[in-house]
Amino acid sequence: MSLMRKPIPVKEAVQLVMNHTQIGSSEKVPLDQAYGRVLKEPIIAKHDVPPFDRSPYDGFAIRAEDSKGASGENRIHFQVIDEIGAGHLAKRGIEKGEAVRIMTGAPIPENADAVVMLEQTIEQEDTFSLRKPFDTGENIAVQGEDAKEGKVLIEAGALIHPGTIALLATFGYAEVEVAKKPVVGILATGTELLQVHEELTPGKIRNSNGPMIAAQLSRMDIEYKSYGLLGDNLDACMEMVEKALAETDVLITTGGVSVGDYDYLPVIYEKLGAEVLFNKVAMRPGSVTTVATLGSHLLFGLSGNPSACFTGFELFTRPALLKMMGGTKPYLPRMKATLGEDFPKPNPFLRFVRAVWEMTEEGPVATPAGFNKSAAVSSIARGNCIIVLPNGTRGYTKGMEVDVLLLGVEEGVAKWEL
Amino acid sequence: MSLMRKPIPVKEAVQLVMNHTQIGSSEKVPLDQAYGRVLKEPIIAKHDVPPFDRSPYDGFAIRAEDSKGASGENRIHFQVIDEIGAGHLAKRGIEKGEAVRIMTGAPIPENADAVVMLEQTIEQEDTFSLRKPFDTGENIAVQGEDAKEGKVLIEAGALIHPGTIALLATFGYAEVEVAKKPVVGILATGTELLQVHEELTPGKIRNSNGPMIAAQLSRMDIEYKSYGLLGDNLDACMEMVEKALAETDVLITTGGVSVGDYDYLPVIYEKLGAEVLFNKVAMRPGSVTTVATLGSHLLFGLSGNPSACFTGFELFTRPALLKMMGGTKPYLPRMKATLGEDFPKPNPFLRFVRAVWEMTEEGPVATPAGFNKSAAVSSIARGNCIIVLPNGTRGYTKGMEVDVLLLGVEEGVAKWEL
Repeated sequence: MSLMRKPIPVKEAVQLVMNHTQIGSSEKVPLDQAYGRVLKEPIIAKHDVPPFDRSPYDGFAIRAEDSKGASGENRIHFQVIDEIGAGHLAKRGIEKGEAVRIMTGAPIPENADAVVMLEQTIEQEDTFSLRKPFDTGENIAVQGEDAKEGKVLIEAGALIHPGTIALLATFGYAEVEVAKKPVVGILATGTELLQVHEELTPGKIRNSNGPMIAAQLSRMDIEYKSYGLLGDNLDACMEMVEKALAETDVLITTGGVSVGDYDYLPVIYEKLGAEVLFNKVAMRPGSVTTVATLGSHLLFGLSGNPSACFTGFELFTRPALLKMMGGTKPYLPRMKATLGEDFPKPNPFLRFVRAVWEMTEEGPVATPAGFNKSAAVSSIARGNCIIVLPNGTRGYTKGMEVDVLLLGVEEGVAKWEL
Repeated sequence: MSLMRKPIPVKEAVQLVMNHTQIGSSEKVPLDQAYGRVLKEPIIAKHDVPPFDRSPYDGFAIRAEDSKGASGENRIHFQVIDEIGAGHLAKRGIEKGEAVRIMTGAPIPENADAVVMLEQTIEQEDTFSLRKPFDTGENIAVQGEDAKEGKVLIEAGALIHPGTIALLATFGYAEVEVAKKPVVGILATGTELLQVHEELTPGKIRNSNGPMIAAQLSRMDIEYKSYGLLGDNLDACMEMVEKALAETDVLITTGGVSVGDYDYLPVIYEKLGAEVLFNKVAMRPGSVTTVATLGSHLLFGLSGNPSACFTGFELFTRPALLKMMGGTKPYLPRMKATLGEDFPKPNPFLRFVRAVWEMTEEGPVATPAGFNKSAAVSSIARGNCIIVLPNGTRGYTKGMEVDVLLLGVEEGVAKWEL
């Protein structure tokens, strides 16, 4: 029976999850609550940026042609007829030999077509002189040079980061259309589990997976409902799963997906009539990771082992949640690094090793974060990346090049490549 | 006068800010609110992990010596006397020839010293047989193998990420000592500024810096008080700055730090008696970035130009805020990338170019995110990194190696190296 589970490759498992993930709806939020959300409308330039020709410096706006022939021996003098700060308009356009003293960001007065920086002049009351000619357009920030009205600047599906907020503010988006966040439930299973505040007793450990997944969701700015923890009791688990499914879009359970006598999740999936996408993945840790769908619900049956649970979330749950929000870059960014120490274990399956990467003179070096069994918890608390070692390899030694997935990075990538 | 400002190197400016930044106090928060905070106490293993010898698999616990001599021809039989799931204890220890059926995570019964995986046995009612001998300790997750009681696992000053939460939960930290967050004020200055919801009028632009900085703070999970926007009016600005200083630890202003006639921040710093650490930095964009201190307050006078403002925050304000919280990795992570397109501009000063990095077959490639003047806003909305081009260089061409600072990354680095 379940001992006969056939492991599928990680790539295939990721694809299966994504193929069964449906994109949700959107809502409007005020701009000051939009950071970290997924944009559901493209940002189209509502006007040119800058919206008018303006001065990029403090100086004088002149007609370039009036500066023709200026030199050290032949300084040309200008009459200053006005002074404008940013946000103000000149009272009138300039004529031959006239200039307007102009501050950074102020609109270029009519007829002016060059700006002389203060440092390039000798001022004297309401005149100044120049020692070099200026070209038409010199030192002018031209209307639309940054962005032309009507241009699509950011596509829907992008994560809203601080720069996106600046752009939205520029175009007057007091509200912005973003993806509704899925509602996610967390349920930890296992008779060995105690709550965080409980004293250890023989044979028991505290539930670390539940709080960890809650933080993995917080990192994505996704709220969660906690369904606490349950012992390995089929009826109680079944009841809680049904309650959770009624209240959430996505249910994450930890534990109970192995092939032990008390691993009830497979039975629960069957009773619910859920479609199990896979229940064994060719990976370490986390080979028992199970994903199922039920209507539009996604059910992630993550391993009860902390390292496996962590990895399962980052590989499968995170991209699915981002896709539900229409995110177009749902996967962890990848880079190459040099292995910082020997890793002699063979890798019958694709292996994910929690690690620390840091920049060195020789480029990025990634070093395993310590004890690396699937039940490990201390190594998850260190490290900022995951080293990925291909299946069928063995005997990695210090200095070899490895793939690394970056953790805790705001913007992901569009493609899963491992 | 102010035209004569002497630019200081970025490295020196960063150092000055950090030297004048004081570490703040701490507070206890519940574990479920601890994600993203800075840890103010070390995490010390309160007990061994795992806290007892346990089975890493579903199988049978035996005495290894009883398996001696087992082979295909000489299968050795065991009597199953008990069955325990995780969280349960065996009723008694095993004796010669006995075994306990044991599930993943369950404690090893007394006298047992090896675990046989289910797959390695032939079961028959309450007996099973083996075809190979087992070593003492085989398939046992030994007490303390992950972490030994008393060991410092994470130092104070670390950012609390999901893995840290798992570790805190393991040791029963229902509450954790974290840094108090500084209170930050944001005040945008400039007569040209409109609020986000206002219609554009000639000579005006909307305030994008204020919302952008708010999002840069949100990204750090730091709350802010917004003091709105003010025209270039000395008295009004002075009054608002004084109000803000009374209510905040750190005040970020945008605009008003240049040498224009309406740039009042230098005057305000003087009137307040603030110590100006620098008012010109040898960098593009953001050369007018000004930082001052007043008592324990930090005042960041960022440029009114969006790109410059963004960069000034990431280079100076972010590390200072992290240091205030006792964070030990306050700087943006750096890596090397190949330049994705020509950048022919000369770099009289250290130049920061907003860019997009992505992984390719040839390693990371970073490409400027478009229009790159200091007033640019569209390029800030694209991109996930900043290319750093050293001062005194010119003529970067596609394919050259450049330094890159990563944006939006949870964990920074301990050292500023550019």
